[in-house]
Amino acid sequence: MAVKIGLLGFGTVASGIPFLLKENGEKIRAAAKDKIEIAKILVKDDDEKNRLLAAGNDYHFVTDVDAIIKDPDISIVVELMGRIEPARTFIEAALAAGKHVVSANKDLLAVHGAELLAVAKEHRAALYYEAAVAGGIPILRTLANSLTSDKITRILGVLNGTSNFMMTQMVDEGWTYEAALAKAQELGYAESDPTNDVEGIDAAYKAVLLSQFGFGMTIDFDQVLHQGISTITPDDVAVAQELGYVIKLVGDIRETPSGIAAEVSPTFLPKEHPLASVNGVMNAVFVESIGIGESMYYGPGAGQKPTATSVVADIIRIARRLHDGNVGKSFNEFVRETQIAHPSDVKSAYYFAISTPDKRGQLLRLAQIFNSEAISFGQVLQQRANGDTARVVIITHSLSRTQLSNVLEKLEEVADFEVLNTFKVLGE
Amino acid sequence: MAVKIGLLGFGTVASGIPFLLKENGEKIRAAAKDKIEIAKILVKDDDEKNRLLAAGNDYHFVTDVDAIIKDPDISIVVELMGRIEPARTFIEAALAAGKHVVSANKDLLAVHGAELLAVAKEHRAALYYEAAVAGGIPILRTLANSLTSDKITRILGVLNGTSNFMMTQMVDEGWTYEAALAKAQELGYAESDPTNDVEGIDAAYKAVLLSQFGFGMTIDFDQVLHQGISTITPDDVAVAQELGYVIKLVGDIRETPSGIAAEVSPTFLPKEHPLASVNGVMNAVFVESIGIGESMYYGPGAGQKPTATSVVADIIRIARRLHDGNVGKSFNEFVRETQIAHPSDVKSAYYFAISTPDKRGQLLRLAQIFNSEAISFGQVLQQRANGDTARVVIITHSLSRTQLSNVLEKLEEVADFEVLNTFKVLGE
Ligand SMILES: NC(=O)c1ccc[n+]([C@@H]2O[C@H](COP(=O)([O-])OP(=O)(O)OC[C@H]3O[C@@H](n4cnc5c(N)ncnc54)[C@H](OP(=O)(O)O)[C@@H]3O)[C@@H](O)[C@H]2O)c1
Ligand SMILES: NC(=O)c1ccc[n+]([C@@H]2O[C@H](COP(=O)([O-])OP(=O)(O)OC[C@H]3O[C@@H](n4cnc5c(N)ncnc54)[C@H](OP(=O)(O)O)[C@@H]3O)[C@@H](O)[C@H]2O)c1
Repeated sequence: MAVKIGLLGFGTVASGIPFLLKENGEKIRAAAKDKIEIAKILVKDDDEKNRLLAAGNDYHFVTDVDAIIKDPDISIVVELMGRIEPARTFIEAALAAGKHVVSANKDLLAVHGAELLAVAKEHRAALYYEAAVAGGIPILRTLANSLTSDKITRILGVLNGTSNFMMTQMVDEGWTYEAALAKAQELGYAESDPTNDVEGIDAAYKAVLLSQFGFGMTIDFDQVLHQGISTITPDDVAVAQELGYVIKLVGDIRETPSGIAAEVSPTFLPKEHPLASVNGVMNAVFVESIGIGESMYYGPGAGQKPTATSVVADIIRIARRLHDGNVGKSFNEFVRETQIAHPSDVKSAYYFAISTPDKRGQLLRLAQIFNSEAISFGQVLQQRANGDTARVVIITHSLSRTQLSNVLEKLEEVADFEVLNTFKVLGE
Repeated sequence: MAVKIGLLGFGTVASGIPFLLKENGEKIRAAAKDKIEIAKILVKDDDEKNRLLAAGNDYHFVTDVDAIIKDPDISIVVELMGRIEPARTFIEAALAAGKHVVSANKDLLAVHGAELLAVAKEHRAALYYEAAVAGGIPILRTLANSLTSDKITRILGVLNGTSNFMMTQMVDEGWTYEAALAKAQELGYAESDPTNDVEGIDAAYKAVLLSQFGFGMTIDFDQVLHQGISTITPDDVAVAQELGYVIKLVGDIRETPSGIAAEVSPTFLPKEHPLASVNGVMNAVFVESIGIGESMYYGPGAGQKPTATSVVADIIRIARRLHDGNVGKSFNEFVRETQIAHPSDVKSAYYFAISTPDKRGQLLRLAQIFNSEAISFGQVLQQRANGDTARVVIITHSLSRTQLSNVLEKLEEVADFEVLNTFKVLGE
């Protein structure tokens, strides 16, 4: 008897599932100990259904979600519609009906994951979502199953393919942000409204999920600081390169003595750092831990087949547990009380690009301000003047978020200084 | 009630286990659903036992393996002695006594794995060995648990830290093989007899295990071609660099229409290939598959803490299954009939460095020989003459192993040609 699944939505990712079931059927069947069969697929309306049938898709399409949720033969519901509603309502109903659920919906899971997991637990149903973080990279299950023996101290990730594609163009080709965005849109990597990708929102969703699997703590989406790449200029990119760095949008979750801190921000990575060579639409998750030390998991962060592969891995896992009679185990069992780090414990080196009047004594004034917050300089570069203003670039030694906001406030007060950009610097 | 483990051997890796049990006790206990306790440790003799006790190691040391194997309270035996015997006999006895076994012994598992797994199966005991391949990188469990949905077509790996450290010195610093080896020995990376590391034997053991997890096929150790790094000269390294490649010792397992082929050999990697930036003692496993496409798993391939982390991950897994009442599942369940590829199906581009007489017409003679085997040239470099001989470097287009041995035979027949080196080239 086959394990019957119902798909909610038949877009990019969902339509990659039949490919795997066909091309890798034998291995999947052996791993699941059962054939996996797409029993029904929910689509929006009859037009869509007819369009899909006409295009040769030989599936049982339905337009009412109850046809799936109330079908006693279907044991796994696979949500691949995206967005919050109605996905949330459908998943909840499926879990309540005792179905196991697989989803790739990071937005939903990052914001409403806790509620959904509670419903799953109540009904002893599985809710798995490997594809929600870094698409094809099997990072969540690896954190949950292999890194159990290790204590993770920091996770750094290139978690958004679109912005990483853009940063790669900006770094390797010297393109402006605008040119890189236009190219990403032309290639279909960026949507017409690219906000989620370029402002670090998508990566912040993933940081929420990584904080749960890596640190056992549920940090709220609102507690993940996020800064996007839209303010990065060719000047920033050039000076980074000159100093031996590559700028990338990096998600950063770490544990400090007072708790965990998560943020997504453009980051100066030393050229030799393994994340520095993660280019184009590829993603990678870099893990620092007390046992392994440093490890990295690299692969495509999106795309039909890679994402469907993670979805099918979840389906197999559930099917196998159904066969073994031990289904319902949480995807992530590592749970501790959530404690958010105090800003004074969250420390990094920083890059400052500051516009100053083009006259003598400016560096001294700057040094005095930074010094008053006990911040010392690692490297200073006085750049070419531009009219009456000069551009000063500073890479500091390590400072805390508290020191950072204090010094920014003080710089703000000086009318003829303008802070052009501030980015985190790794490896100082 | 705690899960009691017995260690066989208390060397480098084994003595890293207490560190993790102490520093990560809470997480490990939560994951295993039980405390893990080192009940007894087998050492060689009383001298060793007294030395360890005097050094402050507060464990129950024993010198007779039966004290562990016949102890009904011990459920997991952790073999970290290395070598074939007596490890093999001890593991077999432990399994036969119904103990679950964790090992990091790649030599043993690559050569006698099938027999040991049969004993394990017979006694419904688990035999796990995550640490046997790429030390701290959780690659075997990831292949077994996550890449089940995917069909792997090729695995490429930098699998030996010692030789990779040496290659990094040879590439980045232009060192000779001899200088790199001396440095590796000085730093304790290479043993006084470095054969296993530098001749690709250690990597070949790992290739055997990867072929099982990645392709479901058990290739014999003897069927893994292996070629070491000792013949690589600064000339080879320099010309690789000039042409945009980095040379590394790479394990390569792939499926062809007629079956699988595994080999370990110095390989020209394009500079942009993710494996090309795996430097020093780090390892990485690069997976090509029909679903994910390309993914890579990177981390330390050896060392006390990383390796112990993989060992403890296996212990947790068994402890958890003991708790859940479903212990005994094979580490790797993916099994197909083994078929070894026909040499004519195993294709790559190749680098040839050939010494020829320093006179006109040599390139034509070479071209005729290659052409007679239907091998075409991608790049040709005529290098500086050295006395009466010139050095010709050829990078071919793709050719099969059959073509390779044929052309080498023909070149051999020409008295005044000498093939200095032949290496595989990736990405042609
Ligand atoms: N694409 C990737 O590479 C990737 C990677 C990782 C994670 N994900 C996640 O995977 C999920 C699916 O992504 P996708 O790229 O496959 O999106 P998509 O191509 O937009 O597919 C979603 C499909 O669901 C349909 N749909 C929406 N609401 C529906 C409803 N109420 N009833 C029935 N069908 C409905 C959509 O129809 P309409 O087009 O008519 O609205 C569309 O066909 C999202 O959560 C996404 O974040 C995607
Ligand atoms: N070290 C790594 O980074 C690493 C990485 C991956 C896998 N591994 C594997 O892990 C295993 C252990 O490696 P290791 O580096 O920890 O080796 P090691 O430091 O040499 O430790 C082995 C220990 O076992 C002892 N031993 C040998 N035969 C014994 C016997 N019959 N009874 C009791 N004790 C015995 C040895 O004692 P003597 O010293 O007195 O012989 C030594 O203390 C090996 O299979 C190795 O291939 C190691």
